[in-house]
Amino acid sequence: MLKHVLLVSCKDRLGLIHEIAGTLLRHSLNIIENQEYVDHGNGQFFMRTAFKGAVSPDLVSELQMALPEPSRCQILSQPLKRLVVFVSKEPHCLGDMLMRHEIGEMHAKILAVVSQVEDCRELVERFGIPFHHVPVLAQGVGNERLEQEARVEQVLAPFAPDLIVLARYMRIFSPAFVSRYPEQIINIHHSFLPAFIGKDPYKQAHARGVKIIGATAHFVTDGLDEGPIICQNVISVDHSCDAFEMARRGRDVERMTFMRGIQLVLEDRVIVDRTRTIVFD
Amino acid sequence: MLKHVLLVSCKDRLGLIHEIAGTLLRHSLNIIENQEYVDHGNGQFFMRTAFKGAVSPDLVSELQMALPEPSRCQILSQPLKRLVVFVSKEPHCLGDMLMRHEIGEMHAKILAVVSQVEDCRELVERFGIPFHHVPVLAQGVGNERLEQEARVEQVLAPFAPDLIVLARYMRIFSPAFVSRYPEQIINIHHSFLPAFIGKDPYKQAHARGVKIIGATAHFVTDGLDEGPIICQNVISVDHSCDAFEMARRGRDVERMTFMRGIQLVLEDRVIVDRTRTIVFD
Amino acid sequence: MLKHVLLVSCKDRLGLIHEIAGTLLRHSLNIIENQEYVDHGNGQFFMRTAFKGAVSPDLVSELQMALPEPSRCQILSQPLKRLVVFVSKEPHCLGDMLMRHEIGEMHAKILAVVSQVEDCRELVERFGIPFHHVPVLAQGVGNERLEQEARVEQVLAPFAPDLIVLARYMRIFSPAFVSRYPEQIINIHHSFLPAFIGKDPYKQAHARGVKIIGATAHFVTDGLDEGPIICQNVISVDHSCDAFEMARRGRDVERMTFMRGIQLVLEDRVIVDRTRTIVFD
Amino acid sequence: MLKHVLLVSCKDRLGLIHEIAGTLLRHSLNIIENQEYVDHGNGQFFMRTAFKGAVSPDLVSELQMALPEPSRCQILSQPLKRLVVFVSKEPHCLGDMLMRHEIGEMHAKILAVVSQVEDCRELVERFGIPFHHVPVLAQGVGNERLEQEARVEQVLAPFAPDLIVLARYMRIFSPAFVSRYPEQIINIHHSFLPAFIGKDPYKQAHARGVKIIGATAHFVTDGLDEGPIICQNVISVDHSCDAFEMARRGRDVERMTFMRGIQLVLEDRVIVDRTRTIVFD
Repeated sequence: MLKHVLLVSCKDRLGLIHEIAGTLLRHSLNIIENQEYVDHGNGQFFMRTAFKGAVSPDLVSELQMALPEPSRCQILSQPLKRLVVFVSKEPHCLGDMLMRHEIGEMHAKILAVVSQVEDCRELVERFGIPFHHVPVLAQGVGNERLEQEARVEQVLAPFAPDLIVLARYMRIFSPAFVSRYPEQIINIHHSFLPAFIGKDPYKQAHARGVKIIGATAHFVTDGLDEGPIICQNVISVDHSCDAFEMARRGRDVERMTFMRGIQLVLEDRVIVDRTRTIVFD
Repeated sequence: MLKHVLLVSCKDRLGLIHEIAGTLLRHSLNIIENQEYVDHGNGQFFMRTAFKGAVSPDLVSELQMALPEPSRCQILSQPLKRLVVFVSKEPHCLGDMLMRHEIGEMHAKILAVVSQVEDCRELVERFGIPFHHVPVLAQGVGNERLEQEARVEQVLAPFAPDLIVLARYMRIFSPAFVSRYPEQIINIHHSFLPAFIGKDPYKQAHARGVKIIGATAHFVTDGLDEGPIICQNVISVDHSCDAFEMARRGRDVERMTFMRGIQLVLEDRVIVDRTRTIVFD
Repeated sequence: MLKHVLLVSCKDRLGLIHEIAGTLLRHSLNIIENQEYVDHGNGQFFMRTAFKGAVSPDLVSELQMALPEPSRCQILSQPLKRLVVFVSKEPHCLGDMLMRHEIGEMHAKILAVVSQVEDCRELVERFGIPFHHVPVLAQGVGNERLEQEARVEQVLAPFAPDLIVLARYMRIFSPAFVSRYPEQIINIHHSFLPAFIGKDPYKQAHARGVKIIGATAHFVTDGLDEGPIICQNVISVDHSCDAFEMARRGRDVERMTFMRGIQLVLEDRVIVDRTRTIVFD
Repeated sequence: MLKHVLLVSCKDRLGLIHEIAGTLLRHSLNIIENQEYVDHGNGQFFMRTAFKGAVSPDLVSELQMALPEPSRCQILSQPLKRLVVFVSKEPHCLGDMLMRHEIGEMHAKILAVVSQVEDCRELVERFGIPFHHVPVLAQGVGNERLEQEARVEQVLAPFAPDLIVLARYMRIFSPAFVSRYPEQIINIHHSFLPAFIGKDPYKQAHARGVKIIGATAHFVTDGLDEGPIICQNVISVDHSCDAFEMARRGRDVERMTFMRGIQLVLEDRVIVDRTRTIVFD
């Protein structure tokens, strides 16, 4: 029997769980996992319920009737989410994802890989996945970014992806682009945010003499490296690591954190609440 | 308003969450945290619900009516659990607990410390806590263990503790003693169980050349080091650590794991299911 | 200029470092990393020195003259070690290694993959690496193991590998086979040894209700899962993980630990001392 | 026999290890641990050597003759370093240190505790350690900081401490004060620096929605939270942690990191190289 996930976010009030569970019961749906959280700072209620059974078309509207407005209420039933991956030159996050996809460890379908350069084409095509090269044509002119983005969107349109994942894609999207994929773009940043925002975080980390480096998977919003954080991870370094060696070791924590962040979203475990995430792990 | 915790364990069936939430709602009790888990291996349902409000005397029996038999259903409302600590010679777990108790970090009341030796008396009394020396009188005779246990029980009786915590207490209780405190005795074992059961785990670990050592907080049952595990933790070691140095480093992971295990039980987050624990963290 | 690594193991005595450093200085070799360790339990001296310069043919014999007998003294200068990988059905450790090899993260050359089954052929050949299927012909007869091993050795012979790595190879080699590759066979065991030796460690771990699972990279010797441990790693699990889910999560710690163990050996950082390893990390 | 530690820092050149080891050998000193590191970014050589034997008065000058100028060369032989602890209101780092000192886990002597408030007096005196209250007399006037510091120095002078450790001391020392104790003041900062510099790091961390929090032990220099980092540590948090709960959990990582940082300095394992530390662990 198909497994579904219900994600709810609304103002808290007495009896919410009872009403939601009652609605599912009336539809003969069997709850197999259930987690709630109330943010007592802002009075917001969050719930994730996994259940089995046949979902009737009016289940969502019945649930919404039971919730205080405004509410957010989604039922996610899709067997496999559809992904497009963006990459630049560094292949390690992409490569890990391609391998997991290949051996059946990723509960998702990779539709295509998009890049502004050709470096990863050969690797991608070896796995039978289409590679789209969308170069940046002119350098230095004000709107070459928007021009490239327009072509990127033409490539994306027919795929209608559920998620866009940036596997070390070193370009910044325009606010207009980002707004067309709300909570649908996941980036891996190669530092423990908010330390070392922006360029060359390993160089910054070496200069500061830190003893731990990290990586952050986050949703992309307008501000650079400022979107809601999904997950983070760290590893130890020591004085013998220069910026190059930090980058080498960092690749392991990057791919692990990236895959973990994507996995959490693929399993419908993440609810965005403005600048933060609720992760029902 | 007082916070209560409901712990439920019974066979799973359709509508359980709805009925339990409904019963709480009828009593005008406001759910603030809620976690469920169904073990699909044995069809068992587990639930932990934290709620606020006034608990009427018939709430538990109403809840039990709603559950399939046999069920286990407890409401825990006590503001501070009452602890008796057992210790032998090594003071590090005890000392950490006394200090946290003193500075208000432990949500519990330490009633007394019991030991078969006098080594820790001075440290305990410095914190204004009674220290009871219950020596083992005869050595080598068959029943000196039971004889000492009888005196231990006389010491314990007036305290009527909720929990007995063994902070490196190096004696083994008889099955009769253990059965009088079901799921109420917590031990810290200084290895990552089930590796290195029994005596001198650090010596065993050094001989095997492991690269990680650990500690395990578990409930005490009849089998040596075999009770349900509450939590575990590890730290890295390397070739330069002999058994003595492993023991030195191990003390940190022991006290941390011990305190974490106790904390989880104090916050009513642990349900025992035969040989395993459900921990709603 | 080429980098070399000197590994020394002998009885400790006054002045050893001075003499070894003096010998390297006479040869105009520049030390860039240096680590020593004396095991005070058995009086054994261990040293790893990385240096640059041209190695003359008599350097090793000069060094050996300076050391108390019996000593072990190796200079490792080979730019890339040569590996043969063994695998059975599960592709995750192999796949991770193939991908790292492909994108230039592994300082080694994978010569071939050997398996008793055909499951991983397609994946291996996609990376242009030869796959050798060496089936087990008869089942149940006493010497079908030795017969297959004989054919395995025929396959191995022309490669003359520096290292044999068992990427979830589910067969056990005979003592005779193991003795032909001393300290050259690395295995990944999917548990935190010595807990859960042998078959189905995740099933054992689930039955015991542990809260942490691990993986162990070790050299293969005669005893099952008893060779010197190179490195170990763990991850947390909880009550919601059945043996299947533990295995799923365990794959990440397996591939990470496996790659780390291989990396340490590839960088000549590991000295075996009977049942244990000295790891100059 | 007494154990000594030699710490060396100078420009790298061929033969340094040979010469240093030779000097120790001429003095019949037996090396028991030895670690070197060359920073290839700036050509600096660092060495830590632990040895046993009788140190003659001219050993340091002989060693310095063998080293290129300018060099730094210290022999540390003192059995127990002398500490003064500073604290404000929060007792958890102080309490942990007092307990470890009491049960013999700290290889140091705590001479006194200094505070601008009286909150921790009772706890400190319970351990028989003098407590010095040095209040800040006037608020808001420009030089009340310097005035209090002058009285702090009068308190410190007779102790002549080797190390000053700030166990959550919430005042900032003047540059003049700091310069009188170069590389002798250790602070614990309750965040993973350089994230969340300055006030209320847990509030900042909660606002940013991070999934990991940390602590940093560092030497105090003029810049706020900018001194060389000795060690860092982190723990996971999730959406259910408000700033208060983060602070509660953070206390564990604070005391652990603080004690680790102090331990490393007490064992003479740390060499400061401008803004960074070399830690021979």
